[in-house]
This record gives sequence, C-alpha cells and structure tokens, in this order.
Amino acid sequence: MSTTNVKAFGTESREADLQQMNIERRNVTAKDVEIEILFCGVCHSDLHTARNDWGGTIYPAVPGHEIVGKITSVGNEVSKFKVGDIVGVGCIVDSCRTCESCKQDLEQYCLNGFTGTYNGKDKHLGKQTFGGYSEKVVVDEGYVLRVPENLDLAAAAPLLCAGVTTWSPLKHWDVKEGSKVAVVGLGGLGHMAIKLAKGLGASVTLFSRTPDKTADAKELGADEVVISTDASQMKSVAGKFDLIIDTVPYVHDVNPYVSTLNINGTLVLVGYLGPLDPFLNSVPMIMGRKSVAGSVIGGIAETQEMLDFCGKHNIVSEIEMINMQDINASYERMLKSDVKYRFVIDMASLKS
Amino acid sequence: MSTTNVKAFGTESREADLQQMNIERRNVTAKDVEIEILFCGVCHSDLHTARNDWGGTIYPAVPGHEIVGKITSVGNEVSKFKVGDIVGVGCIVDSCRTCESCKQDLEQYCLNGFTGTYNGKDKHLGKQTFGGYSEKVVVDEGYVLRVPENLDLAAAAPLLCAGVTTWSPLKHWDVKEGSKVAVVGLGGLGHMAIKLAKGLGASVTLFSRTPDKTADAKELGADEVVISTDASQMKSVAGKFDLIIDTVPYVHDVNPYVSTLNINGTLVLVGYLGPLDPFLNSVPMIMGRKSVAGSVIGGIAETQEMLDFCGKHNIVSEIEMINMQDINASYERMLKSDVKYRFVIDMASLKS
Ligand SMILES: [Zn+2]
Ligand SMILES: [Zn+2]
Ligand SMILES: [Zn+2]
Ligand SMILES: [Zn+2]
Repeated sequence: MSTTNVKAFGTESREADLQQMNIERRNVTAKDVEIEILFCGVCHSDLHTARNDWGGTIYPAVPGHEIVGKITSVGNEVSKFKVGDIVGVGCIVDSCRTCESCKQDLEQYCLNGFTGTYNGKDKHLGKQTFGGYSEKVVVDEGYVLRVPENLDLAAAAPLLCAGVTTWSPLKHWDVKEGSKVAVVGLGGLGHMAIKLAKGLGASVTLFSRTPDKTADAKELGADEVVISTDASQMKSVAGKFDLIIDTVPYVHDVNPYVSTLNINGTLVLVGYLGPLDPFLNSVPMIMGRKSVAGSVIGGIAETQEMLDFCGKHNIVSEIEMINMQDINASYERMLKSDVKYRFVIDMASLKS
Repeated sequence: MSTTNVKAFGTESREADLQQMNIERRNVTAKDVEIEILFCGVCHSDLHTARNDWGGTIYPAVPGHEIVGKITSVGNEVSKFKVGDIVGVGCIVDSCRTCESCKQDLEQYCLNGFTGTYNGKDKHLGKQTFGGYSEKVVVDEGYVLRVPENLDLAAAAPLLCAGVTTWSPLKHWDVKEGSKVAVVGLGGLGHMAIKLAKGLGASVTLFSRTPDKTADAKELGADEVVISTDASQMKSVAGKFDLIIDTVPYVHDVNPYVSTLNINGTLVLVGYLGPLDPFLNSVPMIMGRKSVAGSVIGGIAETQEMLDFCGKHNIVSEIEMINMQDINASYERMLKSDVKYRFVIDMASLKS
C-alpha cells in the first residue's frame, strides 16, 4: 500500500515528552479523504494515552481526536466530500459496520470494537492508528464530519470529542425545551454540557464544590450554580433534575447528586471509569425510579447532528490556542485544571 | 366519624407473635367501598413491618396488602363499583392526588408520600392504617382495583403487590414481543416476573446460584436458566439482555449481571434497599450505555392494566393457602424461602 511520510508530534515512551516525529499515512483509497489538519483539540485522553495511564498504549503514540481540517484529496468513490471541504474527525475512524450497534448508528458501541483515531488498530497499514497531532490524516469518508463553516474552526475542534460526549446523553435522555438538567464539573466536558443543554432549551444548573466558578458558569449559560458542599443548597434542589451529566473524571460520591434527581431521572457518568466508591445507595433509586447510567462519546450520525446544531446555534468551545511545541507544558496545566476550557493546537505551528 | 369493630390479626410489639385482635374500620363515606376480604397474600414487607425491621412500625400492626374481596357496601358517590363486585387492594390506599407524580398516575412515587395500606397515616381516623389480615377494609374507590373474575381469586391476590412490582418495570422499560429479559432470584417477585415477562412475549432467562431451581423455572415459563456461579455460563450470556429484573432482597454483587446487559440495557432493582456493595463498576455502564435503576410497586392505573392483562392471559401467582392462624409459622418458613411461591391466607379462617 502506498504511503506518504508526514510530520507529526508524538511520544516514544510513557516517560518521554512529546516531540516531532515522522509517520506514514496511506495514500487515499477509493473511499478515503485526505485532510490537511488545521486545528486539533487537546483531550484528557490524549495525555492518558501518551503516558499509558490506562495501559495498552502502543508507541510511538500520536494523540489527537478533535480534528478540524480541509480536504486535500479524495478517493475515486468518495461521494459525500470534495477537495476544499472543511471537515472534522472525532474519536472514531472506523468500525465493523455490520454489528447491531453499527447498524443502529451507534458506532461508539460497536460490538467488535471501533477503531480509535489514535492507538487503534489500523486496518490498512496494520500498525496503530495515529491521531491529529500531525499535518494530515486519511480517513474513510463514512467517518468524516462536515463542519459548519460559519463556526470559528479552532473553537469547533473540541466539539468532535467533548461536544459529542455531552450531546449524546442529552439527546438519548431526551432533553428538550423545559427539561431540567444539571452538570457536575466545569471542565472541557462540563462547559460543553452547559452550552449544549442550554441550546436545547433546558434550564441548566452547575454543581460546583466551590463558589469561585459561579460567574464563569453563568457566562457560559448556566441558570444556577449549586455548591455541592453546602447541605442547604443541595436540599433546595432535592428531586429537581431530569438529567444530570456527571463529567467528573475521578472517583467521587454520586449519592448526593442522585438525591437531586426527579422521579424517573437519570444521572449519567461520562467522565469517571471505575468503581463507584462510596457505595451507591439503592433506596432513592427504588423509591423514585431513578437511574445511574454511563455514556461514551457518540455515533457518527449523531456527531453530524450535533455539529449542524452547533452551526445553527453558533455554539463552540471556549478555547486557549497553543502551538504544537507547547503541548508538554499544556499537559501539565491540564493536570492542574488550568485551562478555560480546552487547549486547541494551531497545526500551522507544526510546519514552522 | 362512625366506625365498625372488626376482627383482625396483628401484633402488639416487635417481639410478639401475631394474634387475633379487634380494630375499628370507618363506615363508608361518600367515595368509599367496604370490602369483605376473601384472600390476602403474605408479602415479605408484612413480616418486616410486624417485626419493625425497617423501624417506624406503629403498634398494633395489622399487615396485609395483597387483598382480594367482595364489595359489601358503597358510599353514595361511588361510581366505579357496586355491591357484590370482586375487587382488589394493593399497597396504596390513598395519595395526595395533586403532585406531579399523582397527576401522572404514579401514586407509588407521590411526592407527599402515598398512604400505605398498613402502617400508613389514616387520613380519616388519624391513626395508623390496618391491612388485609382482617375481615373487612374500607377504601376510597379511586384506590380499588377490579379483579377479573375468571382468575382463581386466591392466586390473584399476590398480583396486587408481587405482580405489579415486577409488571411496572417491565412496562416502563418497554418489554414486548422479542425482548430479552432476565430475572435474578426465584421467589414471590421472581416467579411473577417470569410469568409476566413471558406473557408480554419476551424470552426469559432466570439467573440462579444453583441448578436445583431449573425445572421449576422452566415450568413457570423461563426459556433458560443460567447458573450465576458458573463463569462460562455467565460468559455465554454477556451483552444479551435488554432488561434485568433483580428481585434479590439482600445485598449482592450486581456487576456480573450488568455485564450481561445489551447496549442500552437496564438492570432494575426491586428487592434490595441499601448500599450496592461491592462497588458498582462504571466501566461497562459507560462503554455500553447501560443503566442501573430501581422501581417500587406500581400506580393504580398500572395495577388495573396488569390485572386486566392477567385476566386475559390467565396469569396468577403460584400459592400455598394457609389459615390466618398459621401466619406465625408461615413467617418462619418465609425467612427460609420455604414457599412456592407465595402464602395466601384464606380469610374465612378468621371467622372460625
Ligand atoms: Zn477525547
Ligand atoms: Zn460494529
Ligand atoms: Zn408487598
Ligand atoms: Zn401525590
């Protein structure tokens, strides 16, 4: 298979900083588009993969799955896109296409495992996939999204992961005009959850451990901020919410939030993978038909739906633009939650 | 308010056996019906209330909330029933009628607390309510159910609690022809869950810790029995079920069952109130959009729907009939799960 050598930024081991390297990209096959990457958002998964925090990282690792770029070449059977189109690529670059999940546009739950944009199994070249910290990427058109051109393209990049990760549960649990939504945690995911829930017509409450995020949350669209460490504030919202999007990425007690769910309400975890410690108490769940659920990213059609919605409502992420060479320092800042609310790499910097 | 003295069976303290006593029933007011009780099922809640296992029992306590009887008197504004009708009363004899839950026929989730059939707050006489271990009960017609007369009336009694407790989640989570349902635990609730899910057209699997329940479960309608302690059997049903009704009344690990849920599947707890120990793991929930939820009994309209369904499909509980005087010994047998699958009291025995 013919390939092209392109510049990228990645790491050779879990201890090493990311640095410039060269990787191979396949030349377009019949259904592929080649994308010149303009912007790439920086997701926590990038950092965790680079450092092998979850195990399973194959090196060299080139992170990045919030990709916005311009099509530079198309395969001869590509029908949805043409050279020059502004497009996006999220967390998924392929899936089995035949399982029950794929048939229902739920590629994120592909029963045979979707192909991650990085650190996945490249079906064409046989090695690991390489992500968006690179000049170009080649992707099957079925996994490429159209990015509304009225949006700020840099600020649109985080929609491809942080956006759809919060959009998918909002839609699955049917948030609409008048819904009461709460968001736990104000980071990359949480700030998108506020904007998207608000865009859908919900009233939106942010749960925060301290009052110092109140002004920012309201500026992002939150109607209310409830300090979760204040018992009387928590009591004032008992039984209130139809849906809670819990974006907290570390272990935490979800029981106080379950108490704020309305009858039939759902708390959906999108940030924390692991045991629910302390124990989840079934009493309020049974006595109020409440659910605790989980959700991961979103399907391809759903991602397009979200992008179109954002185009119409002019919703993008709040970002801080960085150069590719700033990535290691930016990871350190992310670990301290020192970013409002997403770093986005100006990929032009990789050329310099 | 005028009252009538009726015979009942109850207990004066948590240590005492149940014994015959007399209680006051109000005479019918405008919307009330008076019911001569023919049969009363014996629910685990009866035992726990008699012995104050959950705290809050007011003595004397007269249990019983699976009541089937015949109407002997109606108030002058009663429109749904007439003298001689065969009716049922379940766990709820009143609710606020005005809250968001009551307005949606979800009296079981009444935001002001429904009035329990026993050990509730009697709005008429001011004391605790007394249940079905008695000659007669007087109930507002809005909380009285019509029992299909083609059913065995004794075997229909457990539908009023065990039946609707499993029916409600089956309907709420949309079980229908072709659904894949699993049931955890084969007792009063579990055996009704099998029958009702089967009646709705689902394929039904029983999870059991030992193979000795296999023949019984299949006779009740289960298509399959999976031994939950057998890793290879558990693996064979990984990702299979749309809904799991977990009827186990004591603390247990739900994680192995969550693994058998399909994408978008829900495990609903109906038996165990307390902390989920060991910790529930969020990973399969997030990676498969699975939910863990709870559910309690059902609303009045839903209970009627279930009874009508049972009349049409000739579904009743498997019962062992006892006399009122056998109740203390029967409680001891229930504690050892020594009943297939529900005791029902022949209330004629109270007259003797
Ligand atoms: Zn991500
Ligand atoms: Zn698939
Ligand atoms: Zn009961
Ligand atoms: Zn109510």
